[in-house]
Amino acid sequence: MRFLKVHGAGNDFVLLPDLEDALDLSPALVRALCRHHLGLGADGVLRVAPPLPGTQADAFMDYRNADGSIAEMCGNGVRCVAKYLLDHGLALGPAVRIGTRDGVKAVTCVLGTDGLVQKAVVAMGEPVPLKVDLALDVPGFQTVHVTTLSLGNPHAVVVVDDVATAPLATLGPALERHQEFPERTNVEFIAVRGPGSLSGRIWERGVGETMASGTGAAAMAAAAHLLGLTDRMVTVEVPGGELEARWEEDGMHLGGPAVEVATGDLDPAWLAGAVTP
Amino acid sequence: MRFLKVHGAGNDFVLLPDLEDALDLSPALVRALCRHHLGLGADGVLRVAPPLPGTQADAFMDYRNADGSIAEMCGNGVRCVAKYLLDHGLALGPAVRIGTRDGVKAVTCVLGTDGLVQKAVVAMGEPVPLKVDLALDVPGFQTVHVTTLSLGNPHAVVVVDDVATAPLATLGPALERHQEFPERTNVEFIAVRGPGSLSGRIWERGVGETMASGTGAAAMAAAAHLLGLTDRMVTVEVPGGELEARWEEDGMHLGGPAVEVATGDLDPAWLAGAVTP
Repeated sequence: MRFLKVHGAGNDFVLLPDLEDALDLSPALVRALCRHHLGLGADGVLRVAPPLPGTQADAFMDYRNADGSIAEMCGNGVRCVAKYLLDHGLALGPAVRIGTRDGVKAVTCVLGTDGLVQKAVVAMGEPVPLKVDLALDVPGFQTVHVTTLSLGNPHAVVVVDDVATAPLATLGPALERHQEFPERTNVEFIAVRGPGSLSGRIWERGVGETMASGTGAAAMAAAAHLLGLTDRMVTVEVPGGELEARWEEDGMHLGGPAVEVATGDLDPAWLAGAVTP
Repeated sequence: MRFLKVHGAGNDFVLLPDLEDALDLSPALVRALCRHHLGLGADGVLRVAPPLPGTQADAFMDYRNADGSIAEMCGNGVRCVAKYLLDHGLALGPAVRIGTRDGVKAVTCVLGTDGLVQKAVVAMGEPVPLKVDLALDVPGFQTVHVTTLSLGNPHAVVVVDDVATAPLATLGPALERHQEFPERTNVEFIAVRGPGSLSGRIWERGVGETMASGTGAAAMAAAAHLLGLTDRMVTVEVPGGELEARWEEDGMHLGGPAVEVATGDLDPAWLAGAVTP
């Protein structure tokens, strides 16, 4: 079984080319692939499948979380799939259309001097502001001000002076499971560095701290703008790299690096063991 | 650049075939390869180089830690190198001789039904008992009994009732940096399940908890036997799998799975970025 190891700003994936729709991708195989040390290790799997019937798309991104569960959309994953399709001549650029469980996403690619995709920008849709600058009582902390919004999934953004010293490990889980969020929430900590620049760290719902998150970066940019701290276009520095968020008429556009680390083949004996219960 | 992703009981490595001695393996490249999310992710790199002049060996294992530093020996790594050499017809089996910075190690391989190496046993040398059942005062804990010994590197083994609930995250670092160990120490927690069976967890010096450790497994088996709790031959269950330790006349022999997860090629653009400061 052929694979690519890819990442977008440190959000990493095992990409499985499957335009023939021949792979049987069980939750057990996803977990084995994503497991660090015993497998390849990744945040998720991107199976690149044929477009769904009736959709105008170049391919369908069958995205799975590392725990084997199905997810609708992944902002960094869809950028990596666009790079794969363009670099391998499987779609015409610079705009690629990729089907997801959250609809077809348009990804615009920028080529490097080697003729391969270096950056990709995805239209993430319109952020839905819920509560701006909400004061929350959090046991063990002073009153915490959060801005909550949805990008398909829920986010709570906290402004701090310095993200390096932000209490992610304690306030992150406390906010994730706060009674204000019965469905739990992703949490982002941001420090504004200027009208066009902010740095952020991400506490992902059900995961913990991560190096990057597409919806997280879009939520950070939207919250900072709603609070009057930044312009509509902002550079978001996350631990895994730098992303660019642009809030336009038709919603948030998220751009950033799409990197191929390696291509390879899974060992047949390992594969047989991975799918055996 | 060609690579294999391999592991021995969850101790994982990027193996770089280099029998032509052509690779320039800088610390920056080692760190980039081993970094999770942004690279391939691994505990270390195994460069398989030609044997050193004047040694009777099939190859030389140039082992590097994930932080780019050089290490003398790696019990799980050397078993993976033996599998690579035999599976690819680069050595005659079943015994392979592999040069390391700690001398030439003999590795005996067991083939699976597919004709490929499934298990490998390495002679680890003689454990040197230092202090058996030493009572240590550790701030924040009651008196802790440890058995200390050297397998080239230092180990302190603590017997507990249940490794699942052992206080690794607190007692591990406290013992690692205890004044009894001016050079710091690896720490293993073991629970004896019978005269031929124990389970253990590993707190590795400078790393934290790891899924497996060759010298750690040998230290666990030696300490349990020195304390009169087990026979000279014991199965050691660690979080990454199962190892077999056999304490013979000529020292400790450590056997266990050697697994190839995948083979592949690093992307040239990624590689160029990885070695650029």
